[in-house]
Amino acid sequence: MHGLMQHDVLIDGAEAEGSWLKERAFQFGDGLFETVAIIDETPCLWAAHMARLGEGCRRLGLPLPDFGLLAKEGQLLCAGHRRAVLKIFWTAGQSERGYRRPRNIHPERILRRSEWPEKADGWCALRQCTHRLSENPALAGIKHLNRLDQVVARSEWDDAQTGEGLMLGQDGRVVSGTMSNIFVQREQTLLTPAIDGAGIGGVVRALVLQTGENIATPVLVDAVSLDDVCHADALFLSNSLIGVARVSRFESIEYDPGISEHAVIAETRRLCHQSKPWYASHE
Amino acid sequence: MHGLMQHDVLIDGAEAEGSWLKERAFQFGDGLFETVAIIDETPCLWAAHMARLGEGCRRLGLPLPDFGLLAKEGQLLCAGHRRAVLKIFWTAGQSERGYRRPRNIHPERILRRSEWPEKADGWCALRQCTHRLSENPALAGIKHLNRLDQVVARSEWDDAQTGEGLMLGQDGRVVSGTMSNIFVQREQTLLTPAIDGAGIGGVVRALVLQTGENIATPVLVDAVSLDDVCHADALFLSNSLIGVARVSRFESIEYDPGISEHAVIAETRRLCHQSKPWYASHE
Repeated sequence: MHGLMQHDVLIDGAEAEGSWLKERAFQFGDGLFETVAIIDETPCLWAAHMARLGEGCRRLGLPLPDFGLLAKEGQLLCAGHRRAVLKIFWTAGQSERGYRRPRNIHPERILRRSEWPEKADGWCALRQCTHRLSENPALAGIKHLNRLDQVVARSEWDDAQTGEGLMLGQDGRVVSGTMSNIFVQREQTLLTPAIDGAGIGGVVRALVLQTGENIATPVLVDAVSLDDVCHADALFLSNSLIGVARVSRFESIEYDPGISEHAVIAETRRLCHQSKPWYASHE
Repeated sequence: MHGLMQHDVLIDGAEAEGSWLKERAFQFGDGLFETVAIIDETPCLWAAHMARLGEGCRRLGLPLPDFGLLAKEGQLLCAGHRRAVLKIFWTAGQSERGYRRPRNIHPERILRRSEWPEKADGWCALRQCTHRLSENPALAGIKHLNRLDQVVARSEWDDAQTGEGLMLGQDGRVVSGTMSNIFVQREQTLLTPAIDGAGIGGVVRALVLQTGENIATPVLVDAVSLDDVCHADALFLSNSLIGVARVSRFESIEYDPGISEHAVIAETRRLCHQSKPWYASHE
């Protein structure tokens, strides 16, 4: 009972072996990733990236990677690169059709180096996205591969002047940018949304919180409303590549560039792109 | 400023070209899929599958596929196969790193044929999953590639006796199985959860609703509680491969096999695996 074709896959009309279709990351987004800034051949915030990756494994029920091996391979891939982006995938490996994972998961460890991005003009101009983030405390905070929310929100604009889009959760509260966390400065306080129902807990966000502790100026983690954003003295976005960026405007609101940035922001900015040797940084 | 390596990718420690890593379906789950039952070389519920795929494109902002071409290629791939599963992917194509889609999306059209699954023993035994479905009306109903919720829930059990897991939404209401929709029969009524915040609107579920209309016995679409499930006279699960299956037990509750199944269920069971010629079925 054989068919007319040699293979069981057609890709854009062509017969294909297509073994990568078995990737569970492709079929279901079953895996995790990290995006690491590489400066002077060495990584920034490596320990924080590895901590989040480990937490993601715990939540998704995936085996932990060998962190030493990841560092070794990252080092190999980034040798000779003054500035680069290292994207790490840690996936549930391959399987046939069906949600059930194989009894013996063989996770795949994929490292990919790419160019450091040109700083987007107007990165600091922020708009509001219509698409809201999916709500699920069990998946909030970790950097898993189910990113349709961010993709759909990011497709809402295509002008070079807008650098980022602000995303709300299902309850209408502010959660984050499509690819960044957000900080609201008002008078002496710095406020950032809790990442307990939606969104990703960024490594620079963690550094902001840690820095606040270190210099005895705790950052407030709480519900943030659009009203808080609109009435901020200053607004900041963070991710591993941009570090901390200041927002110039949100929709029709322009923020006063004359206002000094919060001490915790200034200190985080200083720290977040200090890269460290692969092994030292893993300690 | 060149590195020590020829390629920019390491997969499990080996240098690789890894162009498939650019697949947006792999990077973000940016795409849709359909799982079609093939019987006697022809598809079941093809028009319903294509309708859902089209609705998914509209919601995710992807171009529509050429439905005629999908039928043609499905026919080619399934010729000579009495029973098979046809999985269709329609993705946002390839891009470099970053959530933003390229200005000109070149979606990929991937068809994969696989074996008809052995009927799982005890398909009809249902357990309750701890992991709850993510809530997002903007993504509910369509069959997109972000399926971590189903994967995590499906990993909660590994015994062959349990065939399916019942999933709740964030509000604690019943939504569906991990890979099926659910129907609660009580006295003369048939009730199924609204798929407006989470879950997938199955093609057999749509057929159940249509059948209810056709035989003037409307199926109730409303909130379903665990209590409704526990006090059902009979419980049914549906998907494109199993058609309609009756649940024997849910956790410690056994349902009375002596109770006759609802007329709409009986009629749907009769209809859902009647395959039709590729072109006729697309009309």
